Formats: sequence, C-alpha cells, structure tokens
Amino acid sequence: MLDQTLLPRTETWLTCRSAEDVAVAIVDMKVRGAPAIGAAAAYAVALEARRMQHLETKAFHKHLEAILARLAETRPTAVHLFWAIERMRQTLAQATGDVPQQAERLVQEAERIAEEDVVTNRSIGSFGERLFSTPVNILTHCNTGSLATVEYGTALGVIRALHEHGKLRHVWVDETRPYLQGARLTAYELAADGILHTLITDSMAAHFMKTGQVDAVIVGADRIAANGDTANKIGTYGLAILCQYHDIPFYVAAPSNTFDFNTLLGDNIPIEERSAQEVLCVQGVSIAPQGTTAAHPAFDVTPHNLIRGIITERGVIENPNRDSVLRVIAP
Amino acid sequence: MLDQTLLPRTETWLTCRSAEDVAVAIVDMKVRGAPAIGAAAAYAVALEARRMQHLETKAFHKHLEAILARLAETRPTAVHLFWAIERMRQTLAQATGDVPQQAERLVQEAERIAEEDVVTNRSIGSFGERLFSTPVNILTHCNTGSLATVEYGTALGVIRALHEHGKLRHVWVDETRPYLQGARLTAYELAADGILHTLITDSMAAHFMKTGQVDAVIVGADRIAANGDTANKIGTYGLAILCQYHDIPFYVAAPSNTFDFNTLLGDNIPIEERSAQEVLCVQGVSIAPQGTTAAHPAFDVTPHNLIRGIITERGVIENPNRDSVLRVIAP
Repeated sequence: MLDQTLLPRTETWLTCRSAEDVAVAIVDMKVRGAPAIGAAAAYAVALEARRMQHLETKAFHKHLEAILARLAETRPTAVHLFWAIERMRQTLAQATGDVPQQAERLVQEAERIAEEDVVTNRSIGSFGERLFSTPVNILTHCNTGSLATVEYGTALGVIRALHEHGKLRHVWVDETRPYLQGARLTAYELAADGILHTLITDSMAAHFMKTGQVDAVIVGADRIAANGDTANKIGTYGLAILCQYHDIPFYVAAPSNTFDFNTLLGDNIPIEERSAQEVLCVQGVSIAPQGTTAAHPAFDVTPHNLIRGIITERGVIENPNRDSVLRVIAP
Repeated sequence: MLDQTLLPRTETWLTCRSAEDVAVAIVDMKVRGAPAIGAAAAYAVALEARRMQHLETKAFHKHLEAILARLAETRPTAVHLFWAIERMRQTLAQATGDVPQQAERLVQEAERIAEEDVVTNRSIGSFGERLFSTPVNILTHCNTGSLATVEYGTALGVIRALHEHGKLRHVWVDETRPYLQGARLTAYELAADGILHTLITDSMAAHFMKTGQVDAVIVGADRIAANGDTANKIGTYGLAILCQYHDIPFYVAAPSNTFDFNTLLGDNIPIEERSAQEVLCVQGVSIAPQGTTAAHPAFDVTPHNLIRGIITERGVIENPNRDSVLRVIAP
C-alpha cells in the first residue's frame, strides 16, 4: 500500500506480508479513510488466509478468528472496518472445500469488496453531481478521494463528478489539522486531476463563507448513526454549524455501509482519542513548548439537523432523520 | 526585542538600530500583537529621533515624517499602529526646544505609551475577571499576552486576572494556524505562569464546546469599528458563530484605542492578505505538494451581534453596538 504518512513528499510503497503488518499500518495511519481501511482489513484477512493455507481446517479458522479480532482493535470510530471484518467472518463461516479453497474464497471476497467500493463511489458521485446545476465553489475537509477509498472517492468523488460535468468552479481545501489530510492528500489528488483548488487553514472557512465564496460544503463520514448523526474527521461539526449560520448547504457523501443501525444516536459513536504528539508536532517538527499537554479527539459528531443531505450510492437522503434514512437505506 | 518567530524554541533577542529595522521586524512578525506593534512603532520613532538628533530642525522633522509614513506601511489591519504613529506625530509637532530636546520628548512619549499599555491591560483584566463568579474553562485564540502587548495582555490579561482570583479552571489554547501563535506563544506564556492549559487544533473548538467543556471564549482585537464589529486573527469569526450556536459567551478584550471611529462598519476594515508560504509551510517544513496555491487572509471580522461584551480599560461594553460603544468610550 502507498504510505500516506509520507505523502506528498515521497511516494513510498509499503509491503504488508501479514495481517499484523496491515493492522499496524492502519493504527499508524499509513492507510486511512473509512472505506480504504475497510478494504485494507478485508485484504489483510485474505492475505493471512493464503499465508496460513497449510494449516488444518480447525487451526486455520481459529487463527483467522484471532486475526479478525486483532483487526477490530485497530481503530474504533470508522464503521467500515467492522463492516468489512463482519463480511469476511461470514465468508469464512460459509466457505466450503479444503483450506486452500476457503482461502481463495476469502481472497475473492476481499476483491469483491474493493470492486464494489469503486462502483459505489461512482454512484455517489453521480447522485451528488445532480444536486447542483451551475458551476459551484465547494469546500471540503480531510481527504475523501482515491486515497481514502479504493478509487474515486466519496465527497471527493462528488467533486470529481462535478468537475467531469463542467459544474465545478473551484475547491477550497481545508488543510485539516492535525494530520493535514487536506494539505497533504486532497491537494495532491486534485492537482493530479487538474482541478482548480486553494488550500486554506481550517480557521479560514468561516471567512470565505461570509465573503460569499463557498456554495456548498461536502465531507465524508466515518460512521453514521441510525438517525443520520454523522461522525467524521475532527472539524466537521464546526463546519456544519458555520454552514447553518451562512445558509450554505452541508452535505455528507458516504456509502450506505457507513450507516450503523445499531447506533441510534451520534452521541453513542465511540470517538477515537489519538496521540497528543500528532498535535504537538507537524511533520516531525515540534510546534509547542516542551511539556505542553494537547488533546486529540480524531473525530467529532455532526447532528443530523445540520445536514442538508447524505449522498449515498442508493440516492440522496435529504434532511436526514430516522425515517428518511430508512426510506433510502433499509438496514 | 524578543524575536517571536523563533519562540518557543529559542529566545533570541533582536537589536533594532533604526526605525527601518523596527519596520522590517513588524512586517516579518518578529514583533506582533496589536498593542505591541503600536509600542514598537512608537519606540521606532523615538530611536530614530535620538539617532538623528544631530540634524537641523527642518531636516529632523522631514526625516521623522518619512519614518512615520514608512511605519504606517508595515501592516494594515491593527489600528494601534496608526494610533501610536499619530500620537508620535502630534508629539513631534508640539515639541519645543532644540532638536535633542525634541528627541527626548519623543522618547518620553514612547515610554508613556508603553507604561499606559500596562496600566490599561491590568484594568481590562480587572473588568474581565469580574464577569465570572465560579471557576471557568476559557478558550482563547491567537496570542494576546505579554508578547502581544507591553505586559500582562488583553484577553490573556483577563485569563491571568481570573487565575489570580482563583476563578480559572483551565484554558483551551487554539493553536491558531497558520502562524501558530497559540501553540508557540500562548502555551509558552501560560506555562511560565503555571496556568493549566491544553493545546488544541483550531478545528477542535466546536467539539469541546458541544461536550460542555468551554464556559466562555475570550479573544483580543486588532481593530474595532464604531459599531463594535471586530477584526481579529483569522479564525475568530468562526469561533464567535460556534459560541452563538452553543450559547457560550464570546468576549473581546481590547484597550479603547482599538476602536476606530472613522470606520463605521467592520466590512470597511482592511484585511491584510499575507504570504501563501505561511500556510504552505509550518516552521519551515512544506506541508503541501509543490505548486499548491493557498490563501492567507490574516484577519477576519466578527459582527457585533455575535459579541457578548467588549472588555476595555474603561469598562465592559455589553451587547456592543454604536450606542453602547459610545456610552463606554467617547471618541
């Protein structure tokens, strides 16, 4: 996998030889982005299945169950991880034939997950693009493109689709502290696609909204509760409030597997607390006095009433709430 | 002067030998913070007056007029600069005696400006402290302490006064991208004073407001229009909106000379656009792909209706508007 912690300075490809290698890469955010984490976890199971196909059936299953449990410990917020793990668990439970045949079935399933993600994202892009009629200025947060998914992206997929249809004027890219996914990854993807964009600090969004230079905000999601409350990268919730104040539509673009129907309210979504070091240092350079304490909630939760629509591959959930979510996405 | 661009890593003192040296230091933000810039400009005139006291009266005045004009070009937004320049211009116009005597008069006036600033800040702290009765969690943005003023600070002066009166629980320090005044300078000052604080990225403020961990936001100001609209460090306006949404009081702490009665509305305050490089690089390290375009408005304007009160050395202007501003501060 492409080591995203080193982008955009170097394109270094990391070779994972075991599921444990993948687990560490997920924890260290070498791969990040909710759908990409899900796909990586699925491939981790497939990789481990092939690696261990010399085992007896019982030992093979026991080993893979341990791997599934290990992968589930890597990151707590994004639900795609658990969705992909569950799908691989069920595939394993239903797999027939000898161990190598079961292993191949797991490889197939991982590939299917990856292929489906691309189709899903194209569909999200298409539904999202149709929300706009004239060329627009879009502001986005974090990275939701090819690097965060298998290909094309969710919120960035909508932006790509707008660009393809001549309906994109320009993109405001929130740098997205502390991890700088906007500056490092989204700017990198947009430059590669020749899409006009301007990098801003997260603190500038309100100013450009006030001066009439933002027509809509589109972000991704790491987990969406049954009522539409959305966990996404820290800073998203504040953007949604700023949109409400300025009467700018705020959209979430996410595949239907981002919905967690077991979580009824956003307040029940677990929020990952990451290392303070990621706030205290930028690209390895310390920015605060020695001994400074920092907080690092990696996500926040945007209540559904601040969201104009959730753009999924099954359609747009306008004014999301428990009922409208169910109408578009049956669990 | 202490070179603030190198803090907190090294405490390097910069020697200015001419007003031009000071002008360059202001442009390069070696000294920053509205009241500190005003005092620095006043001392620049005093320094230049002593340096040029061998001139004939006419040449002396002509030279200093050019210096005053040069200093006025350094930074456009903070009004203290223009206030201090005007005060030094009037002092020069009214100075009597020979050139060395006039030069001494200018030195006295610069010292008076500096002394007044300290008294003013103590008074702001005192008025601000009385707004709270129980120990509070304060969130602040940028740096408004001893480094931004001559001593004690404006918003940080209120925080210091709360601490001195046992009414401060803890301070959330916005890192304040792009220049990181919060991470580099405010954390440095609070640590020196033994005040409990936590550094956060600017994008985290909304999350901590939502979770009930912010009782009030207090910020400084670079220029306040006659109606109370306030220009301050980029990111301030967004914070004020977040406060309104969460029903958290948003206060501005600033000396009365921050008011510009010639500017009727905030929209008329000139907003400095600084170099994109300051967004694209953090502490000299590039954070975005080569060739990325960035925007860098250094300030934004918060409309008066989002401000619960402006804390001045003459008292607190509650619910600021043209009338309530005039009641507390006659121009």
